[in-house]
Amino acid sequence: MKKTFRFPKTIRPYVALLSLLLFCQFSWASFLVEKQQFSIDNFQTHNGKTIPKVTLGWEAYGQLNADKSNAILITHYFTGSSHAAGKYHESDAKPGYWDAIIGPGKAIDTNRYYVISMDTLVNANANDKQVITTGPASINPVTGKPWGLSFPVVTIRDFVEAQKALIDSLDIKKLHGVVGPSMGSMQAIDWAVAYPEQVGKMISVIGVAEADAWLVAGLQKWAAPILSDPHWQQGNYYGQTPPLAGLTQSLAIITQEAMHPRIFNQLNPQHSAMEAAPAASITDNFKVVDWLYSAAQSRASSMDANHILYLVRACQLFIAGHEGSLQNALNKVQAETLFLPATGDLLLFPEMAKQAHQQLQQAGKTSHYAEIQGDWGHLDGIYNIQQQADTIKQFLEQ
Amino acid sequence: MKKTFRFPKTIRPYVALLSLLLFCQFSWASFLVEKQQFSIDNFQTHNGKTIPKVTLGWEAYGQLNADKSNAILITHYFTGSSHAAGKYHESDAKPGYWDAIIGPGKAIDTNRYYVISMDTLVNANANDKQVITTGPASINPVTGKPWGLSFPVVTIRDFVEAQKALIDSLDIKKLHGVVGPSMGSMQAIDWAVAYPEQVGKMISVIGVAEADAWLVAGLQKWAAPILSDPHWQQGNYYGQTPPLAGLTQSLAIITQEAMHPRIFNQLNPQHSAMEAAPAASITDNFKVVDWLYSAAQSRASSMDANHILYLVRACQLFIAGHEGSLQNALNKVQAETLFLPATGDLLLFPEMAKQAHQQLQQAGKTSHYAEIQGDWGHLDGIYNIQQQADTIKQFLEQ
Repeated sequence: MKKTFRFPKTIRPYVALLSLLLFCQFSWASFLVEKQQFSIDNFQTHNGKTIPKVTLGWEAYGQLNADKSNAILITHYFTGSSHAAGKYHESDAKPGYWDAIIGPGKAIDTNRYYVISMDTLVNANANDKQVITTGPASINPVTGKPWGLSFPVVTIRDFVEAQKALIDSLDIKKLHGVVGPSMGSMQAIDWAVAYPEQVGKMISVIGVAEADAWLVAGLQKWAAPILSDPHWQQGNYYGQTPPLAGLTQSLAIITQEAMHPRIFNQLNPQHSAMEAAPAASITDNFKVVDWLYSAAQSRASSMDANHILYLVRACQLFIAGHEGSLQNALNKVQAETLFLPATGDLLLFPEMAKQAHQQLQQAGKTSHYAEIQGDWGHLDGIYNIQQQADTIKQFLEQ
Repeated sequence: MKKTFRFPKTIRPYVALLSLLLFCQFSWASFLVEKQQFSIDNFQTHNGKTIPKVTLGWEAYGQLNADKSNAILITHYFTGSSHAAGKYHESDAKPGYWDAIIGPGKAIDTNRYYVISMDTLVNANANDKQVITTGPASINPVTGKPWGLSFPVVTIRDFVEAQKALIDSLDIKKLHGVVGPSMGSMQAIDWAVAYPEQVGKMISVIGVAEADAWLVAGLQKWAAPILSDPHWQQGNYYGQTPPLAGLTQSLAIITQEAMHPRIFNQLNPQHSAMEAAPAASITDNFKVVDWLYSAAQSRASSMDANHILYLVRACQLFIAGHEGSLQNALNKVQAETLFLPATGDLLLFPEMAKQAHQQLQQAGKTSHYAEIQGDWGHLDGIYNIQQQADTIKQFLEQ
């Protein structure tokens, strides 16, 4: 009988702990990624304007296979960027936002797929060194000055066209899939309508197929604080004091509305109605308000106010296909689709995703639907996405 | 055999129609009411400040009985007033907000009860001729100038104390009931805690027992546009240009957040993502946004911006009992209670009302709970209240 090696009993707990730590170290370790940039000359917008030069950042994880059939495009959310997974440096505090599902052996397996992600036009984080975008804060090569509001209004379709140009440059004829959360879901479903033969699978996470009247008005609430900030000056604030107060207020609203009361209250367990300062003066705030504004202010430092306005408008103008009839647009879809709304989403209600899913099914398409549970609300699509890792993996691989 | 009189067959349908019209005419006809006013000298706020003179409007429907045991107090919502039922003039376009349940033979039967309603301190509608209130827009008798921010921060308890002073002046020892929607629900439950022996029944409609961190931050969103309007000037705008843009933005947010997407979209069936103006210019709006702002602007004309700030703060500071421990406060309640949240409420979630109801039950109190269905969301507590008319009637009469 062969004798199995076993550690002496006394050190076994320590060996177990060490193994666990090594395992965690391994599974936590993110791969390193590099930002690349891609330029398009004379970019034609969907609404017929020309942008002389568009330059956008992008990153990729995994390897493109020989027949270029394994590409998956990740489209980012409103305040997000192309940094969907991995780290730029080992020392980065956090990896990309969907690192939980993108990487070697993960749901979107980079051993298997070539995963591409691109900064959108008018990306919110215009002043973030790791983001490369073109928008009102960029220099108009014709005038040598920042575009400001002379930058054309852009749509979700324009984001798609910029990605399409990148895909074409890589000689990729068909995407294995397009996957995106929130505003990324708008891009994903618009891809499936605009280029039906070039999208194999589409995953809409915390998404919608169109902005209804409610959403259009709700998004205006995000724009309003910037529009009414005296420093905004019709968008001509470059080289002067930017409308930081308006931008901060906008981000405070966005931050709260992306959450559910459950997580919001959990994050503020110290909140008390008996705080002295707000009871003494109208201009003194509750600690929870200071907390929210301080988080918003810190986010604002790398963002541009005009870019937020342009993103708001792109989302307000959204209807999959950009042709007025959603059903006509959805009839064109050839991709197999999967909708993953969050049950507690108070920003883009799961009913919106369910409706798109049902419209696709009624049109005879193969569509799947599952809900993400959690306390985060809309943000469950980011922070609890690993809950649907198996669903995503199977959907992409089947 | 006695022969019953019957209309000839040919005219029977017309008689039926006429009867229906007469019946409707009768049941639609609102009774006439008159605004009265009530003053309190040296009003002491819950937080220890003195207001030399408080004058508030009030109205009453029905007759106080001999032993003064049939009084029901109605406490109003955030942008509401004491005008809960009836009309001031036959020609009024609409009766008071809860006319559907208050009146002769209605759920809150004015043939049976003496129904009292009072304008709160810092009432939003400070410039409405039919509203009498005291707040930052009022003249401080000491200085002869508007109070502005020197008016003390007031709480829901102060609203209750003003109502208590009126009740005392009428020599009413115990209220048969206190009933209020939304901010009115805060006053109703605070009454039941502050004066447990003087409240027989308490009905909280679309209500909460405390403002949690989520609600405090959400309410700040209503204050922010006023605070950042350059015309606000730390509240010293009286006699100058008032902060109308900020007030309008605030009311646009309030108007939308009190609704559910279902009704909002139903009210804007013409909405289209293909509108030309917003696609051409960032500063041009969708029609639905113009619609919302135009409604807000029209409401703003009779309101005062500082009063909105004070109401926001009163709601932010709210916890039933105003003593830090909600459970301790609820333990004091002697009234039988009924909670009527709206299932689709996205402003004050039904979970909040359910929690208060359950806390009361756990404390051994008699509490009832039912939900109002509808498409209005929070506003179902106003526009669909007749759905719970029987529940309210039975609760009050049993």
